[in-house]
Formats: sequence, C-alpha cells, structure tokens
Amino acid sequence: MVDLTKMDRGDLQARAQRLDERYLRFKALGLVLDMTRGKPCAEQLDLSLGLLDCLGQNDYRAADGSDCRNYGGLEGLPEARKLFAEFLEVDPSEVIVGGNSSLAMMHDTLTQAVLRGMPGGTAAWRTQPAVKFLCPSPGYDRHFAICQHLGIDMLTVGMNANGPDMDEVEPLVAADASIKGIWCVPKYSNPTGITFSDDVVERLARMRTAAPDFRIFWDNAYTVHHLTETPDRLANLFAACKAVGHADRVLIFGSTSKVSFAGAGVAAMAASAANVRHLKSGMAIQTIGPDKLNQLRHVRFFRDMAGIAAHMQKHAGILRPKFSAVEEVLTRELGGTGVAGWSRPRGGYFVSLDTPDGCAKAVVAMAADAGVQLTQAGATFPHGRDPRDRNIRLAPSLPPLDEIKQALELVAVCVQRVSIAQLLNR
Amino acid sequence: MVDLTKMDRGDLQARAQRLDERYLRFKALGLVLDMTRGKPCAEQLDLSLGLLDCLGQNDYRAADGSDCRNYGGLEGLPEARKLFAEFLEVDPSEVIVGGNSSLAMMHDTLTQAVLRGMPGGTAAWRTQPAVKFLCPSPGYDRHFAICQHLGIDMLTVGMNANGPDMDEVEPLVAADASIKGIWCVPKYSNPTGITFSDDVVERLARMRTAAPDFRIFWDNAYTVHHLTETPDRLANLFAACKAVGHADRVLIFGSTSKVSFAGAGVAAMAASAANVRHLKSGMAIQTIGPDKLNQLRHVRFFRDMAGIAAHMQKHAGILRPKFSAVEEVLTRELGGTGVAGWSRPRGGYFVSLDTPDGCAKAVVAMAADAGVQLTQAGATFPHGRDPRDRNIRLAPSLPPLDEIKQALELVAVCVQRVSIAQLLNR
Repeated sequence: MVDLTKMDRGDLQARAQRLDERYLRFKALGLVLDMTRGKPCAEQLDLSLGLLDCLGQNDYRAADGSDCRNYGGLEGLPEARKLFAEFLEVDPSEVIVGGNSSLAMMHDTLTQAVLRGMPGGTAAWRTQPAVKFLCPSPGYDRHFAICQHLGIDMLTVGMNANGPDMDEVEPLVAADASIKGIWCVPKYSNPTGITFSDDVVERLARMRTAAPDFRIFWDNAYTVHHLTETPDRLANLFAACKAVGHADRVLIFGSTSKVSFAGAGVAAMAASAANVRHLKSGMAIQTIGPDKLNQLRHVRFFRDMAGIAAHMQKHAGILRPKFSAVEEVLTRELGGTGVAGWSRPRGGYFVSLDTPDGCAKAVVAMAADAGVQLTQAGATFPHGRDPRDRNIRLAPSLPPLDEIKQALELVAVCVQRVSIAQLLNR
Repeated sequence: MVDLTKMDRGDLQARAQRLDERYLRFKALGLVLDMTRGKPCAEQLDLSLGLLDCLGQNDYRAADGSDCRNYGGLEGLPEARKLFAEFLEVDPSEVIVGGNSSLAMMHDTLTQAVLRGMPGGTAAWRTQPAVKFLCPSPGYDRHFAICQHLGIDMLTVGMNANGPDMDEVEPLVAADASIKGIWCVPKYSNPTGITFSDDVVERLARMRTAAPDFRIFWDNAYTVHHLTETPDRLANLFAACKAVGHADRVLIFGSTSKVSFAGAGVAAMAASAANVRHLKSGMAIQTIGPDKLNQLRHVRFFRDMAGIAAHMQKHAGILRPKFSAVEEVLTRELGGTGVAGWSRPRGGYFVSLDTPDGCAKAVVAMAADAGVQLTQAGATFPHGRDPRDRNIRLAPSLPPLDEIKQALELVAVCVQRVSIAQLLNR
C-alpha cells in the first residue's frame, strides 16, 4: 500500500477519483447497517436462552431460605453476592447485587455523591463551588454523559496503551481538591481495548489526592470478555488500595449485560464497608430491593465462575471472526496509507480507529450518507468533542460478518477520501 | 363492652390487673410475629408461579419485532405500555414501563426535579431557597423518607375520609410558591384505606398553585386491590387535570408488586407528553433500558386487564379472611371501649388503628415486648413523628390467619392497658 501522505497532487487526485467511483458503488447498494453501539448479536444472546426457563415453578428460594418472589434483600441474594464476589475479585460482604444495569448503579452512586456526599468528605458535592472528574479519553460516552447531566466538570486526560496518562493524572489530583474522581474502564477499555498495566493500577491506588472523598469509578465492564486464548490480566485495584490505606477510594462496577442478556442481565458493584454502608443507606430510600428472581436465574444458569468462563469462550467464538474481519479489511485497505491507525483488541467490544486530525466527523458523515451508521465522531470524548477530531469507535459485535466486511470497506474508502481532500487542501 | 373512659378508678384498676394477667399469658407464648410491612403472603405469591416459566426459549420478541433480550426500549415494550395504559387509565403514549419498583420511579423522578427541575418551572429545585411538599397524614412512610432524603421540607396536612383536607391544601398551595408537590395514595390509601372522592380529585385538578411546576405524585398503588365485590371508583385525575389545562400537574405511578411478585414485578408511570419527554431525557442518562423480558413475562401471563382483574379476585379471596379477622377481633376486644377507632378498608393492604392521643408508641412497644412487631408508631407521619402519637398501621397480609387473630388480641390488650394507665394518671 502506498503512503498517501507522500503522494504528489496528481496521484492523489487520480486516487480520489477512483475512491469516489467506489463510494458511489457502495451508495448504490442501499446499505442499512448499524455499528453505533456495542450490542451483542442474536447468536450471542441465544447462548443464554436457558435463562428463560431455568427456574421451575418450585424454584424461588435462595440459599438462606428467603423467598425471592417477595420484597427485601437490598444487597442482593447471598449466592448472587458470592458469584459476583468472584467476578469482581472481592469479598461477598463487599458486593451489592442490583437490577439489570451497571450504568444505573454508576449514575445513582454519583447522584448520591452530589446530593449527600461520600464517606471521607465534608459535605454533599452539590454544596461545593466546583466538582470535577478526570475523563481519560477516548473513553465511554455514557460515563461522560452522567457527569454532564449532573453538572460535574470534565477534565480530559490522555489514554495511553497502558491506561490513563498517570503523569497527567497525579499532579492534577494532588493539586485540586475539586477533582473528586476519575472514570476508568480498566480491562479491554472502551473504545481503545487496552488493559491497565500493573504500574498504572498501583499508581492509581497510591496517588495523593487533594480531595479526601476522591473516588475511582472502576467500570470493569469487560472483565471476562476475552477474544484470545491468553486473557489479559488486570491487577486488583481494590487490593492495592487497601494495602496503602485507600480502601474507600475505589467503587467497582460490573454486569452480565454482555455475558447473558444485554437488557435483562444482572449488575453489581463492590466497595469498602464504609462505602457500602453509605450507598445502601441511600438505596434503602430508593427501592425495597432488586429483582432477586433474575439474580437466582443467573446463579442457576451459570453456577460459578467456571460456568461463566466456559460461556465466555462461546461468546469469543462468535466475536473473534468479526474482530478478525475488521482487522483484515482495515489492514488490506488502509495498511501503510499513513492516514489511519487502529487498535487490535484482545477483548471487549470495540475497535478504536484514528484518522488524521480533523477528519473523523467527515468520515462518519460520509459513511452515514452511504447507509453505514458509526458511533458519532467525538462521542468518545467529554461533551462529544474530540479536540483532534480523529477518533472513531467501531462496534462490530451486532452485524453479520459479511455486513461488517462491507461496512469496513466503505469506512476505509471514506477515511482515504477525506484524508486526500485534506492533503489536497494543504 | 364498657366504655373505659367512663369507668371509675377502682374498676379501671381491676380491669388493668386482668389485662396484665392476660398480657403475661401472651408473653409466655413466646410469639414471634411480624406485621410491620404490607408484604404479600406465600399463598398470594403462589398465584403468579406461572410467571416463572411462561416464557419459553422461543419467546423473546415483542409485538414490534424487537428482541427483548437486547439493549434498548427506554419507555418499555409496546404491549407492556398498552397493558399499563389500561391499568393506569391513560393513553399508551403517556406510559413509561420500568423495572421492578415504582418507589424507584418516584424517587428518581423527584431526584430529577431536585437536580434539573420540572417542565413549567424556572430552575432546578436544588437552586431554590426552599422546596416543600404537602404530606397528607397518616400516609406512606417511604414517600416521606424520599423527601427527607432529598432535603425537601414536609408540611403535614390532614387526611379525611374522602382524601386530603382540601380546605387546608388549597390555601397553602395558592400562597406558597415553594410548595412544589403533594403525595397521594388515592385509592385504598396507605394506611387509612380510603378512596379520594370525586370532589377531592376535582379540587386537586383545579386548584391554583403558586408554583408553576407543582406536581401531584399520584401513587395509585392499590388501584385493582379490592377486598369487596363492589370496588371503589376513583375519578381520573389526569383527565380532570387535562380538562382544566393542568395536564403537566400529575405524575401517576403503579406497579404489579402486589399483583404478581412483590420483588420481581413491573412498575410503570404515566404523565403528560412534556413530562414524559423531560423524564425520559433524564432516564436516558441513567440506563439503557428496563428489563423487557420481565415485562414480556407479565404481558404473557396476564394478557389484559380482564386477566389482571380475575387474578386480583384470587388475591382478595386470600386477603379477605385476614382483614375480617382483624375487624372481628378489634370489634370484640375494643368495640365500645372508647379508646380505639379503626378503619374498615374496602381494599389495599392496611388497617389504620387510632388509640387515644399519646398512647401509640407505648402500645407498639408493649406489643413488641410480647413478640409482635407492628409498624413503628409515628411511621405514617413525616419524620416518623405523629404529633398526636395515636396512629398505628396494621399490616395483616403476611401472617397466617391464626397468628393474625393472636396478634390482634394482644394489640387490643395493649391498647386497653396503655389507655387505662393514661386514664389513671389524669
């Protein structure tokens, strides 16, 4: 492949014409493809069909004898707490098992902090002149949306191959007491696919924070979502925090949304005794308890972590060809062109594609015009504004294999075409 | 039965001694009875066992073809919205079907108002010097707890046999723009069991409110929970509000918690287009969507309102003897004593018992000492403080019939004994 950035104007113009012709052929196909979100495909959901009828009419009692059909049990079923304790690598007493959405648990936790504060702090965050969160970016748009919604200022920090740029993070949190937290997707990160290194985890645990009620929102959404036979290993932040006397610093979130059913899974969180006590006192006002029958269904269906691991192998079997197709098309179409870099994730749900600065929005718009919806350009940054306008999140889980190939070919045409337009305008 | 308030001291002392002997015999029984909450009994929950396996492995698609296992559908399944539209007597487009808890929907709605305000208002409630809610009392303790939690001041207003005392309510809301709402359980009210009259509903709809963003939280928790063959009829507040141009005033809540499973039912709310739009914009930040499979389960199991009505007849068949037992024991033990009045509810989950002023706490404590836990005295008033210390909420749904009789006999002994102590201390 030739490096577009080194071609002369004539060659670029000729190539642009060929790309335009190819683009028009795509357009003529009348594609209607949606790659906007990390939704599991039907084949993946079929893996968990057993959940639908695994509770018989005589199976509604938890291990402690409680009737899962009735009210109660704010912190979730004992056996569900045990399973999620393994899942999140914590003690069962540190786990709260909730409803179907870990996003809701994060939202509600942050809302509690705004309304009532957090252990270690002096006041509700709403009473403070400014509250800021660090947002390693590219990151997860729904995290940023929660901050925006709650009026929390967002400070973008860099996202490296080994995690957030700790050389940026450490001085910021040490100097500014209004910085109350940081968002992290530490394993197979959304969207860049990286896993935080042991060193980054250790530095997050140890760093000095000016805010006494600083919190790491540790959204371990893809903890068991491997795409290779040699899973990434993530150091245990909670253990590291405990070791240096910072147990209250971390709030861990996870769910089975991309293990069982995306819309009808089970979410859980884990935290120190002080945090759990505080959060439960707020939850007790909000609800009488979670849907324990769905928790029981999940315990019956998966049994234990070995059951979940075996199940995730089946997911990987479905997802691997899709991610391979993305890699194959991008390499074939964009390798060596000098106008694109992309991630080769070993797990998770996304491929992160970088165009030349200033091109991402135009690429996404051009693909949409030909019927392929990508995640909005900029979505992976606070306020939906990518300062370099270059990052595009690709979500290959939902469409069938042939559609992914087609969509990626179109994306590659758009990336080249927009890049050439920029090169010609220099 | 003799009227204790008209007995002379000697007779009172003799009677007190007999009551003490009877109390000691109760104590010797070593009772362990819980009548604190309106929990359905196992026999009631058994009525819905079909929910556990009514979805087969091929049944996960909604009427609009959407896959209920996957993400999406913030406002709930079309067929669930249709069912709840009938349930709440509104249009399907006005319905949001959620998770397992209408309490959470109320909590989250009020939290949104505090953080972001409400349509018609000028600002988020958190930015205003004071926010107050009217709390008709006796009322539902969890409503009051939400206000307390969010820092909303509570103004107690009287609860009459036909609803809140509108002669109190109207001048308050007309004069004070910081009064932003009122809590209502309009049918078979918690705990007094009354249903709001047409006149009260009409006055709630018409009344002038100084706050432009005033909201009626209409918790229609017991709308189909009849105990007689001739159900109470509740006028349609939403229709009445629309008729006078106050469509945005009302937020309606309901659930199947006491229809299907208390812990694993489906909750829903209904409101005007402006309110729904506003609330959905907040919900979209909190969650990707509710558990649609549980919504589908409920639609499959109940089919329609006729199915729900037939199902509620079975609930009534189980509950009626329990409420009759309460009435029978209270009449036998306390009728004509002049020291107790109680409700004879035609639906819902509670009997409201009034002792002489200043006696409720002592009665509840005395019953607890003999092993019968009642709802905390004062719980039915804001901040858990009954200014007259006289109201006790009895929740007869959970215990078996013989235990209810035993518990109520003990309660009657306690009411008489505490009342006599007070009479002797005059």
